[in-house]
Amino acid sequence: MALFVEKTTSGREYKVKDMSQADFGRLEIELAEVEMPGLMSCRTEFGPSQPFKGAKITGSLHMTIQTAVLIETLTALGAEVRWCSCNIFSTQDHAAAAIARDSAAVFAWKGETLQEYWWCTERALDWGPGGGPDLIVDDGGDATLLIHEGVKAEEEYEKTGKVPDPNSTDNAEFQIVLTIIRDGLKSDPKKYTRMKKRLVGVSEETTTGVKRLYQMQANGTLLFPAINVNDSVTKSKFDNLYGCRHSLPDGLMRATDVMIAGKVAVVAGYGDVGKGCAAALKQAGARVIVTEIDPICALQALMEGLQVLTLEDVVSEADIFVTTTGNKDIIMVDHMKKMKNNAIVCNIGHFDNEIDMHGLETYPGVKRITIKPQTDRWVFPETKSGIIVLAEGRLMNLGCATGHPSFVMSCSFTNQVIAQLELWNERKTGKYEKKVYVLPKHLDEKVAALHLGKLGAKLTKLSKDQADYISVPVEGPYKPPHYRY
Amino acid sequence: MALFVEKTTSGREYKVKDMSQADFGRLEIELAEVEMPGLMSCRTEFGPSQPFKGAKITGSLHMTIQTAVLIETLTALGAEVRWCSCNIFSTQDHAAAAIARDSAAVFAWKGETLQEYWWCTERALDWGPGGGPDLIVDDGGDATLLIHEGVKAEEEYEKTGKVPDPNSTDNAEFQIVLTIIRDGLKSDPKKYTRMKKRLVGVSEETTTGVKRLYQMQANGTLLFPAINVNDSVTKSKFDNLYGCRHSLPDGLMRATDVMIAGKVAVVAGYGDVGKGCAAALKQAGARVIVTEIDPICALQALMEGLQVLTLEDVVSEADIFVTTTGNKDIIMVDHMKKMKNNAIVCNIGHFDNEIDMHGLETYPGVKRITIKPQTDRWVFPETKSGIIVLAEGRLMNLGCATGHPSFVMSCSFTNQVIAQLELWNERKTGKYEKKVYVLPKHLDEKVAALHLGKLGAKLTKLSKDQADYISVPVEGPYKPPHYRY
Amino acid sequence: MALFVEKTTSGREYKVKDMSQADFGRLEIELAEVEMPGLMSCRTEFGPSQPFKGAKITGSLHMTIQTAVLIETLTALGAEVRWCSCNIFSTQDHAAAAIARDSAAVFAWKGETLQEYWWCTERALDWGPGGGPDLIVDDGGDATLLIHEGVKAEEEYEKTGKVPDPNSTDNAEFQIVLTIIRDGLKSDPKKYTRMKKRLVGVSEETTTGVKRLYQMQANGTLLFPAINVNDSVTKSKFDNLYGCRHSLPDGLMRATDVMIAGKVAVVAGYGDVGKGCAAALKQAGARVIVTEIDPICALQALMEGLQVLTLEDVVSEADIFVTTTGNKDIIMVDHMKKMKNNAIVCNIGHFDNEIDMHGLETYPGVKRITIKPQTDRWVFPETKSGIIVLAEGRLMNLGCATGHPSFVMSCSFTNQVIAQLELWNERKTGKYEKKVYVLPKHLDEKVAALHLGKLGAKLTKLSKDQADYISVPVEGPYKPPHYRY
Amino acid sequence: MALFVEKTTSGREYKVKDMSQADFGRLEIELAEVEMPGLMSCRTEFGPSQPFKGAKITGSLHMTIQTAVLIETLTALGAEVRWCSCNIFSTQDHAAAAIARDSAAVFAWKGETLQEYWWCTERALDWGPGGGPDLIVDDGGDATLLIHEGVKAEEEYEKTGKVPDPNSTDNAEFQIVLTIIRDGLKSDPKKYTRMKKRLVGVSEETTTGVKRLYQMQANGTLLFPAINVNDSVTKSKFDNLYGCRHSLPDGLMRATDVMIAGKVAVVAGYGDVGKGCAAALKQAGARVIVTEIDPICALQALMEGLQVLTLEDVVSEADIFVTTTGNKDIIMVDHMKKMKNNAIVCNIGHFDNEIDMHGLETYPGVKRITIKPQTDRWVFPETKSGIIVLAEGRLMNLGCATGHPSFVMSCSFTNQVIAQLELWNERKTGKYEKKVYVLPKHLDEKVAALHLGKLGAKLTKLSKDQADYISVPVEGPYKPPHYRY
Repeated sequence: MALFVEKTTSGREYKVKDMSQADFGRLEIELAEVEMPGLMSCRTEFGPSQPFKGAKITGSLHMTIQTAVLIETLTALGAEVRWCSCNIFSTQDHAAAAIARDSAAVFAWKGETLQEYWWCTERALDWGPGGGPDLIVDDGGDATLLIHEGVKAEEEYEKTGKVPDPNSTDNAEFQIVLTIIRDGLKSDPKKYTRMKKRLVGVSEETTTGVKRLYQMQANGTLLFPAINVNDSVTKSKFDNLYGCRHSLPDGLMRATDVMIAGKVAVVAGYGDVGKGCAAALKQAGARVIVTEIDPICALQALMEGLQVLTLEDVVSEADIFVTTTGNKDIIMVDHMKKMKNNAIVCNIGHFDNEIDMHGLETYPGVKRITIKPQTDRWVFPETKSGIIVLAEGRLMNLGCATGHPSFVMSCSFTNQVIAQLELWNERKTGKYEKKVYVLPKHLDEKVAALHLGKLGAKLTKLSKDQADYISVPVEGPYKPPHYRY
Repeated sequence: MALFVEKTTSGREYKVKDMSQADFGRLEIELAEVEMPGLMSCRTEFGPSQPFKGAKITGSLHMTIQTAVLIETLTALGAEVRWCSCNIFSTQDHAAAAIARDSAAVFAWKGETLQEYWWCTERALDWGPGGGPDLIVDDGGDATLLIHEGVKAEEEYEKTGKVPDPNSTDNAEFQIVLTIIRDGLKSDPKKYTRMKKRLVGVSEETTTGVKRLYQMQANGTLLFPAINVNDSVTKSKFDNLYGCRHSLPDGLMRATDVMIAGKVAVVAGYGDVGKGCAAALKQAGARVIVTEIDPICALQALMEGLQVLTLEDVVSEADIFVTTTGNKDIIMVDHMKKMKNNAIVCNIGHFDNEIDMHGLETYPGVKRITIKPQTDRWVFPETKSGIIVLAEGRLMNLGCATGHPSFVMSCSFTNQVIAQLELWNERKTGKYEKKVYVLPKHLDEKVAALHLGKLGAKLTKLSKDQADYISVPVEGPYKPPHYRY
Repeated sequence: MALFVEKTTSGREYKVKDMSQADFGRLEIELAEVEMPGLMSCRTEFGPSQPFKGAKITGSLHMTIQTAVLIETLTALGAEVRWCSCNIFSTQDHAAAAIARDSAAVFAWKGETLQEYWWCTERALDWGPGGGPDLIVDDGGDATLLIHEGVKAEEEYEKTGKVPDPNSTDNAEFQIVLTIIRDGLKSDPKKYTRMKKRLVGVSEETTTGVKRLYQMQANGTLLFPAINVNDSVTKSKFDNLYGCRHSLPDGLMRATDVMIAGKVAVVAGYGDVGKGCAAALKQAGARVIVTEIDPICALQALMEGLQVLTLEDVVSEADIFVTTTGNKDIIMVDHMKKMKNNAIVCNIGHFDNEIDMHGLETYPGVKRITIKPQTDRWVFPETKSGIIVLAEGRLMNLGCATGHPSFVMSCSFTNQVIAQLELWNERKTGKYEKKVYVLPKHLDEKVAALHLGKLGAKLTKLSKDQADYISVPVEGPYKPPHYRY
Repeated sequence: MALFVEKTTSGREYKVKDMSQADFGRLEIELAEVEMPGLMSCRTEFGPSQPFKGAKITGSLHMTIQTAVLIETLTALGAEVRWCSCNIFSTQDHAAAAIARDSAAVFAWKGETLQEYWWCTERALDWGPGGGPDLIVDDGGDATLLIHEGVKAEEEYEKTGKVPDPNSTDNAEFQIVLTIIRDGLKSDPKKYTRMKKRLVGVSEETTTGVKRLYQMQANGTLLFPAINVNDSVTKSKFDNLYGCRHSLPDGLMRATDVMIAGKVAVVAGYGDVGKGCAAALKQAGARVIVTEIDPICALQALMEGLQVLTLEDVVSEADIFVTTTGNKDIIMVDHMKKMKNNAIVCNIGHFDNEIDMHGLETYPGVKRITIKPQTDRWVFPETKSGIIVLAEGRLMNLGCATGHPSFVMSCSFTNQVIAQLELWNERKTGKYEKKVYVLPKHLDEKVAALHLGKLGAKLTKLSKDQADYISVPVEGPYKPPHYRY
């Protein structure tokens, strides 16, 4: 796409694929609202007092229908919002169109190039002369990364006059990041420094981004407070587990229509995401083999009747491979060469480096046949045998299907709203330092409670006597912080 | 669409949505071939001898990718083929295009009107001056019905000069059938009679069509031999059960993206289709309630931990309703009025009369909001509450997703190929009278055996001594006819 | 035990282990009655008219608590009853005691020798001077066998004066049968012939006995009518499947206390019994591998995510082996030698020849260590490695636990009561010839219906219009005879 | 039993039910050793260096076969051991006999009175003139409680001369504790004070005991260091979850033989224990309803398709009730009165106050019918309807079956051994203060690793590059402390 910003009649900026899909997006947003009781409760509870009045929020998070309900919850609470996606394939264009038309500045479309991706991220952070953002909603940490790298470069530039050199790295994507920063430096050598100063904090959505934050905290380089939303129980034990249990088979079926029953499936990693994937595949009738580095998670897999082996043991007999590790270099091109014809290879971890796409793309004589968008058959010259790679190694549930369903995202996103409120409300109290925090247990329990009614559940109430017996308040929180659920 | 027949450069007739999708269709057909070992084995085993040389086969069966592999198996064995779909929403347009371009005369597109549907059926039966078909592959029995009604009308016309009166029936679809027959009578008053005379037989795919055939056999009105493919074990206990277990959640997810976990789902009917649906919903985390008329099936549901109640008991608390009964008038508009807002209502039984679409469409003041094709929200005027109806009450797995996956359809369709071969090979021996037959057990076992290798299975072999001990041949068949599996 | 008949104060004969357990037996019988609604309904419906008045019924069927409720249902309907078990380990001594004291002549105890077993069978058939039995309830066909062999010997004796020669067979158990017949011949050379003449018929409980009956029918040697209760849907698809799903893990746990989760379990045979066993093991967290000869059953196993291999493939890596085939020579001593230390080997098929106990017992230098009754560790001299064999290779669920639970046996035994009533009521009408019959569908459905209320289920009722549409009576039966459920 | 201490020929004290069961116990211990690879590895790794040389260990923990392997691991590492059970019904008498004969001083039998129970606890703590214990293995905290109460009384006595007054409490069991302390005070007013001084620490097994420890830590009354073994991942997420998933149905089946399939089961509490119980019941075919106070756990139950209601909602329609809460007063006599006839009521939480046994026992006119030990039918006078209570409201898996299986207990007990080693090795370093500690992550991972080989698992190894990428050491630990698994 030609990279220029467009404007709505009301003057709000945007760049989306097709504004004519806005009506369709609106209809699906309305359906999603019924499935997202946590967010709708936030609108009811906090909307009248407009707590985000004056707050400018930038989000970098998959621009889906569910995210649309999140965005409109933030605006319903008074915020001004700019948004980009955190993955080049995850945007639902009708969702982007509806939000761009009705509610917030959106820069996102399905199938961005990496160049376009970072342009969009820059736009979402670009609040113009008035400055901003005040708050960031991040997923994977790319918005946070850009600011941190920007500040680093500006400091270096101020001290030494040196600008970042994109050729200093092999990583193609990081070259783009450095180029963007370099190109901006001369026109405005204090842009990211101003951002950093204004920023109240970030709330981070996912395991990968959280890991980055803890590393920065450990290194002492974290520039603003961060709330780790991922480790709310109602996030990591829900969206990661139940969300993937839903969206992995959804992605497999939409991309390949392959029968899962009877197949041998390998799930690399048995964390929350891997547990959800393995459960879904097993329930669909596959025979599931898990690979793990962690003996505890491996023993959990065994207790569920799953086999635990290494990838090498099974690479030539399995039909479906799913990476969920959050690590890199899990399935290499040498593995792929040994796979059965039409073996399916996909990733549901945050980043696209679990599968060696670079090795595959540069394999001499390999042939890529695009069956349909996000579904490619790669044929090796020696064997004429092909493998099917989904979403080019990126998050297959967002690339090939529509991501996690609304209900479970309502849990995650209610945590986001609460985290953003917490950061904003405490912006002047000094409660949050430049560290990583998790939300307190009672808020976690509240998020869950907001989702019970929709499913017809009734909670039992503790008597005072019982509460005293187990040493908890009658209204909770009911568990110690280390409780594992 | 304008209803005129088109021709390929080679002169073969067709009518499809978009011939430019043929390449895409071809790619998916090639993927499906790898998943359909039974059909590919038929090509290997029978292809060289061209057993269908000279046979003209008309098919009326969902025009999907899997059916494309069936059609090209029939042509690989020497047959000439004309095809239509047996459902207005089930055609995959890229499959139709690929077959029309490369292999057979196809008349089918997704989203036919009923008028168009019966025009397509007529075309598939219209072999021109040379006459035909010799064989029919039927699904639901509409091709068979048209010939039977045609013959009846021609006999009446010959005797009394009377033509069928479309106004003699309330059923809108049957009015169309009578109109077609009436309109054809004058120009060619012996068309269906000639067809009947030539016809070697029909092989019928599904429960509903089989029921019609047995009724005709009982009434003595069946005009040619029929093989009941549905009741091959490798069909009804596989495609109905495992196929629906796969395609029901697939349809739900593509149509609505709704989270199944935590929901209350009602499955009406606990036959093979209902068992597959209930298993899929339970495994996805729904709480499943079954409705049944048959106490044995009800007791089976209970043994799986499912609740068995009547629709009236649960209509206002469930989130998802699926009809699988093969009967009519299961969910009426009065039920729908009582449902929760955005309850999902869908059917996976063959015909569209399980859900009272007529009652819904004619409900005073009801408002239909099409979210996307095959996904409609219907809002009742009194409550402003809406329900979501999939595929207009027709087969939701074909209307909203892509039907059953290739592997399980390979079982069903290998039975079809074997049945067609059997009818054709015995066409002059008198083996088959005007009755309904099932395939012998050893062929059923053969179909299964052809599908084991793909899944890495190894069978145990009986010793002669063991075979004698249980009184079966070493090579099978291993079970008595009444065995239930 | 010393083999002499004892008598109650009322003069009824019996031989049980310990009459002092009668009170305990009575308490458990009362519990079981609440779980057996089908049998209790028979008492309510038929008790007042005393349909079995004058009928003498011999039963040869595991003498358990559940069977006690069956026996007392027969007596509540007017019958006089004599009973033995059909397995040397399956008797529950407290059940035997309660029935012997209160209701019927019982000859059965847990841990009979084969000699004792056949003595008990003879006693159960010995109605004294008045003659009898009129009816037989058989399980596995041993009572039926004894009469058939007896008649054969008496006919030979009458013709030629020759008596059976026990040495004419290698089979140790059949030698005992021949000895019994031989020893009785001289004192009463017409005993079995008189029995045969009087006998109205037999109702047979299980797959193995049914197979014998069909063989006799095919050979023309069947001496009286037989009803195949096993193939009632409410028997073979319930007791075989759901009964074993319950009682297999029960037997494993009571015998070995071994953790099932994480283990590799091999199930030989995937019929109804194998399906129940595999489901139970999978659900308990084992990784299950199936061995099969029948490709259809093998494909069913694959569709449930189970691996299908041969015993040879897995013999040295599995932890638990279960035979369910109904065939012989499944696990041979050469297999057992290759197993892991403390691998568990057990059988849940009717006869004890699935596991090569003879080969094991006679293996040179093998050492048997009895952990507790029915749980033996057999140590091979070469490896010092041992395997654990349950119930000496006999039905492990009855030898190591208490067999199937009451509720599912209520289904099976209600079929028995109905079959016995049918034979008795039609004894003078000639309805039943010397053939094998199954109960009509409407009675099968009735059995199921009697069990729904207890589980809180509510059936849906067909309207007349719906019934006509699918061509069934409003009250059922709802399915054609070939329907597989 | 008459309460006097017996002695083995070697002079070791004991009191068990029946020493003649020692051989049987030994055989089962040998079987268990094969299933407990973690403990056996400890013997191999640490045995040669005799790290517990000189250590006197008192254990208060269910005296089962698995505990026997733990005890003999402690002695194999050089310890001297005295043991009692922590539950009046949980002792397996053959295990107690084998240990008493061969390895340690045991005071335990199945079916102790409360009086006997505390006498046994006192004996296990009574190391005679030489003093002791040095270490305590506790389960539920009763040994720890007795010492704390003893010290409190001795301090009070020293200060004021006052002795504890058993009538100061309503709690019958606590009256016994106070009586024991009071009676000992005069003869030895410093017994517990000496114990406290010598004690290196306690390792606590279960949730309930841990809760008590944290309360004491919070109050500042904890007298010695404590290691919380329960919250090792390889304990609470394994034994509590997978152990109960195994042993709940085991207990139900042994006690009642009731068919679980088709039943409605209520699980009170959805913590780790409740999750295991609910999974087992669901898999066995029950319809499971959960009661919960914690919205997060409730939402987890919903995501698995379980219904969440209050006990009041379902008390009159459920068939099976299981308490797993760790709280008190869950099922009261007023609930029991409303239950269906023969509803089963049982508890699998540590203490027996989840079920209102006192209310039941004192209900006017109630009648108790003991079916067999640990299985009582209680009949209410008004309705003549009875409920079945297992193990008198105590841990039903230990009272009615044999507790958790060896393999999962090997995980728990390997943590115990490691905790005891840690306390002992650091006894002079001051590493452990009078606080509650959990074991470090790498030891937790080690425990898991020791159990993988037995199940045939193979771990994947991280490359250095991958380890750096996710910021963990190549050898682990792999997860942050807050990770929930």
